[in-house]
Amino acid sequence: MTETKVRVGLLGCGVVGGSLVGLIESRGDDIAERTGLRLEIGPVAVRSLDKPRSVALDPGHFTTDTADVVDAPDVDVVVELIGGVDPAHDLVAKALANGKPVITGNKALLAADGAELFSLAHANGVDLLFEAAVAGGIPFIRPLRESLAGEQISRIMGIMNGTTNYILTRMTDDGADYEESLAEAKALGYAEEDPTADVDGHDAAAKAAIIASIAYGGHVVTDDVYTEGISHLTQTDIEVATKLGYVIKLLAVIESFGPDGVAVRVHPTMIPETHPLASVRDSFNAIFVEGAAVGDLMFYGRGAGGGPTASAVLGDLIDAATNKFKGTHASVFASTPAPIMPMEQLRSEFYLNLDVLDRPGALATVTGVLGSRGVSIRSMEQIGLGGEARLLFITHTAREADVRATLDDLRELEEVGQVNSVLRVMGA
Amino acid sequence: MTETKVRVGLLGCGVVGGSLVGLIESRGDDIAERTGLRLEIGPVAVRSLDKPRSVALDPGHFTTDTADVVDAPDVDVVVELIGGVDPAHDLVAKALANGKPVITGNKALLAADGAELFSLAHANGVDLLFEAAVAGGIPFIRPLRESLAGEQISRIMGIMNGTTNYILTRMTDDGADYEESLAEAKALGYAEEDPTADVDGHDAAAKAAIIASIAYGGHVVTDDVYTEGISHLTQTDIEVATKLGYVIKLLAVIESFGPDGVAVRVHPTMIPETHPLASVRDSFNAIFVEGAAVGDLMFYGRGAGGGPTASAVLGDLIDAATNKFKGTHASVFASTPAPIMPMEQLRSEFYLNLDVLDRPGALATVTGVLGSRGVSIRSMEQIGLGGEARLLFITHTAREADVRATLDDLRELEEVGQVNSVLRVMGA
Repeated sequence: MTETKVRVGLLGCGVVGGSLVGLIESRGDDIAERTGLRLEIGPVAVRSLDKPRSVALDPGHFTTDTADVVDAPDVDVVVELIGGVDPAHDLVAKALANGKPVITGNKALLAADGAELFSLAHANGVDLLFEAAVAGGIPFIRPLRESLAGEQISRIMGIMNGTTNYILTRMTDDGADYEESLAEAKALGYAEEDPTADVDGHDAAAKAAIIASIAYGGHVVTDDVYTEGISHLTQTDIEVATKLGYVIKLLAVIESFGPDGVAVRVHPTMIPETHPLASVRDSFNAIFVEGAAVGDLMFYGRGAGGGPTASAVLGDLIDAATNKFKGTHASVFASTPAPIMPMEQLRSEFYLNLDVLDRPGALATVTGVLGSRGVSIRSMEQIGLGGEARLLFITHTAREADVRATLDDLRELEEVGQVNSVLRVMGA
Repeated sequence: MTETKVRVGLLGCGVVGGSLVGLIESRGDDIAERTGLRLEIGPVAVRSLDKPRSVALDPGHFTTDTADVVDAPDVDVVVELIGGVDPAHDLVAKALANGKPVITGNKALLAADGAELFSLAHANGVDLLFEAAVAGGIPFIRPLRESLAGEQISRIMGIMNGTTNYILTRMTDDGADYEESLAEAKALGYAEEDPTADVDGHDAAAKAAIIASIAYGGHVVTDDVYTEGISHLTQTDIEVATKLGYVIKLLAVIESFGPDGVAVRVHPTMIPETHPLASVRDSFNAIFVEGAAVGDLMFYGRGAGGGPTASAVLGDLIDAATNKFKGTHASVFASTPAPIMPMEQLRSEFYLNLDVLDRPGALATVTGVLGSRGVSIRSMEQIGLGGEARLLFITHTAREADVRATLDDLRELEEVGQVNSVLRVMGA
């Protein structure tokens, strides 16, 4: 097979960039043999030339001038690994306008400006690929766009953040509390010093917005996503869930309601212990897809880390280069905003944990409030606690707004000491 | 978006064909909107025009002359759903030679004649796509060929047959024996009246041969695959596995040994209960991939059935039609035969279950035999059985040939009553 040389320009060269350079070095011969493409690293734009780097590249590759990458005539494909919106947005736009395919793992950029950038890629007849942005090394975007292009997908549920899944696994398996588990995640390098983006669900929300945009053909941005994190979860919640046969996971849930729009949300969720997502442990990610014809699918793997992320970038790189030399590019879906179903109108089962005074009629009063709001009870357990009793309910499917109203009513009752926990229950 | 009409010819119209016709009918508008392709069913070749069909097609579509499909100038893409090698081989070859892309779910055909047919497709500049042949509705071939094109894959382990996984799940969860579970699988339509192809591992072996051919770029045929079924498994094996923290699954295992070749095998395997494949239950399939950069991946879903299989065919159909009208086609990998590592040279841990006479020195004699063959013991348990004792060993990693020689030696010993079970242990 004759070899076509593909010169790759890099924007940024951190952990993922270093892994990518190593992969291209070690796998280059095999890739050339299989695909006919000889990948070679060209200019690498970095912020400082003085920073020591472990990457095996001649210093001549490095430049502080991004124009050496995005404007250079001999750069065939650009890989953006800077992260954040600024200056990544302008550099990606410049490269696309120059007719260069772009590979990015930048979820913040796509969740904010994806529609604009995809239109620009389409107008210039080149690819903008982003497998690494959604679930690290898990091949999901390509199967979703291509293999499932004809499938009617009713719901996608994903464990899209490894840090929070690690914390929840420690809380479940080792009985650790939230703070201990977070400290352990930091010590292992899974959590940042400021873990807000992970534990408050914002990282998962950006990924969910991108998936929703691909799956349902209308553009969804991060602000459209209802987001609730895991920092309020207690060891008691975990223990009760285990006792009832559930596991608590931070899920991103993306649902289509046809012409009424899509609903995208991230929140801690109780799922049955036999659900495939329940056995996704430690820092692994997984995405569960419910399709009308195909049934249930799950994609599982590492959602972060240099090797997995670089692997996803490399797959996109081969694809974009192949397309470029064939004079084609991947299909782009509609970029008009998707109608969003408000959270209040969504339905799920709920787990409610509340303390009530242990006196005659208290249970009847509480269940009366639920009934008056149309929230019906699937199972109930009462645990004595001296002068109080703890009530654990799992409801039948109920509307979010009705449950919120029920909770407001319950908090007004003198029989109710406090509402300890409210969690959505899905996947049964 | 302007619409391009794509006329689809069908060879065969059974359960999958019927589902495909229904999907194209129900999803056609959405597919046209997303991809610009207007799929329409053209001629459908069937063996008999008299057979009653539930499919919603005008009788004018049906023909008994396959030339109406493979030679018709106005057929853009051919879908082969006949199964078996003859006459499917000649029809697929004819369609490819006529410049028509072909979609097939025919694992027997590809495992036997894949190399020849892929060369023919390549020579004619069209696609031969086969997502449905390997794991039904699970998108696996496209991610493997494209997303993981640059990845160094060390091992692939798959639950590739739903019938046997259903039987093993019943034996594990309900304590049913093999015959009962098989009968139940037949009653539910999961197992054929003659279940040989499933329970003896041949179905999984054909799929494993196809995957090996894609993953490692050398052609592997079904005869290259070491194959062992599940019909010898007993409830005792299941119970012992559970007690030791393992689950028994029928796994297809595909490994690369670099220049020394590939090893492809199908056999019942004990895997740790915490391994992601262990939680794949009932008739679901899953494929677990171990990559150097990407780490562990798993793809999970339905491996059979009309809806899932038709969904995979539809994804391929959209892809092949898109490529055809762009004047391109998917890359084809090398079709030279792969060197095969013989089973005798492969290594794994082993579980051995044998009955010995309960007398002084018996254990020392048995462990002496293992030691003399270089098979070292990781864990051992002895259960008293009146005058006999049952010994359960799990070995450290050992060579298949050494374990076989060990078993021959043990069977010669007067202290050994019988060897009850030998299972490979993987995935730790």
